[in-house]
Amino acid sequence: MTFAENTAETAIDNFIDNFIAAVKFNTDGLVTTVAQEASSGEVLMLAWQNAAALRLTLQKREMVYFSRSRQKLWHKGETSGHIQQLHSIAMDCDGDALLAKVTQVGGIACHTGRKSCFYREFSDNDTTSDGIVSNAPVLKDPQHIYGA
Amino acid sequence: MTFAENTAETAIDNFIDNFIAAVKFNTDGLVTTVAQEASSGEVLMLAWQNAAALRLTLQKREMVYFSRSRQKLWHKGETSGHIQQLHSIAMDCDGDALLAKVTQVGGIACHTGRKSCFYREFSDNDTTSDGIVSNAPVLKDPQHIYGA
Repeated sequence: MTFAENTAETAIDNFIDNFIAAVKFNTDGLVTTVAQEASSGEVLMLAWQNAAALRLTLQKREMVYFSRSRQKLWHKGETSGHIQQLHSIAMDCDGDALLAKVTQVGGIACHTGRKSCFYREFSDNDTTSDGIVSNAPVLKDPQHIYGA
Repeated sequence: MTFAENTAETAIDNFIDNFIAAVKFNTDGLVTTVAQEASSGEVLMLAWQNAAALRLTLQKREMVYFSRSRQKLWHKGETSGHIQQLHSIAMDCDGDALLAKVTQVGGIACHTGRKSCFYREFSDNDTTSDGIVSNAPVLKDPQHIYGA
């Protein structure tokens, strides 16, 4: 690494440090992050990040979450190949939520094979639905996404 | 209320009951809810709902949240007039997050007078910014929204 590269790297690290310092993580050290498709505006998913996940996201420019069920860092797409390339990320007015605009590689964010995780929609006009209808198709069989 | 109206009301209540029963509220009885402008796709805010807030939202077709700081139901817009009319609401694959598509009356969701709460954007190319830049203008002075 040259001196110039090193200096640039340090400056970016400072920006990242400052941004992370302004985020209000909860008592578990986590913040909610919404991933939105940059091109269409479709909301793809909501997950959680700790400071380490947010730092990696800003460094790699790919979404890294913290899996609460597995209690570890989760580089989205590490198994499926469906990574999320970061375009921009912003915190909200009180700093306890983040909105990331991304390109969803493969066009599938949900482990069910749908584009978005938010497909279980309230409906009061389908008497067969029990109040919930699927508003989006399965694009790819999950067994083919993750290997059977 | 006629018999037919009463029956219809009961049916809707059943749909609402079923939808709420499928939501996985956290140990505090809350779920995260993202409000997105139906027309533009812009993400406006993220807040929390308990079962009562979600029920009122589905009944009124206006967003009702649960304020964690005030520990009470919060009918969005009750002070400012900036209510959010509900178009649709969906839960995600694991039922622990909701996405509501809304019309934002007044065009301002944020208490700072901005359209969206997500205006504090990460930037690594503005050396004066300290890593955070505002990506949206204040549309109305908060003192005029809430009364001085």
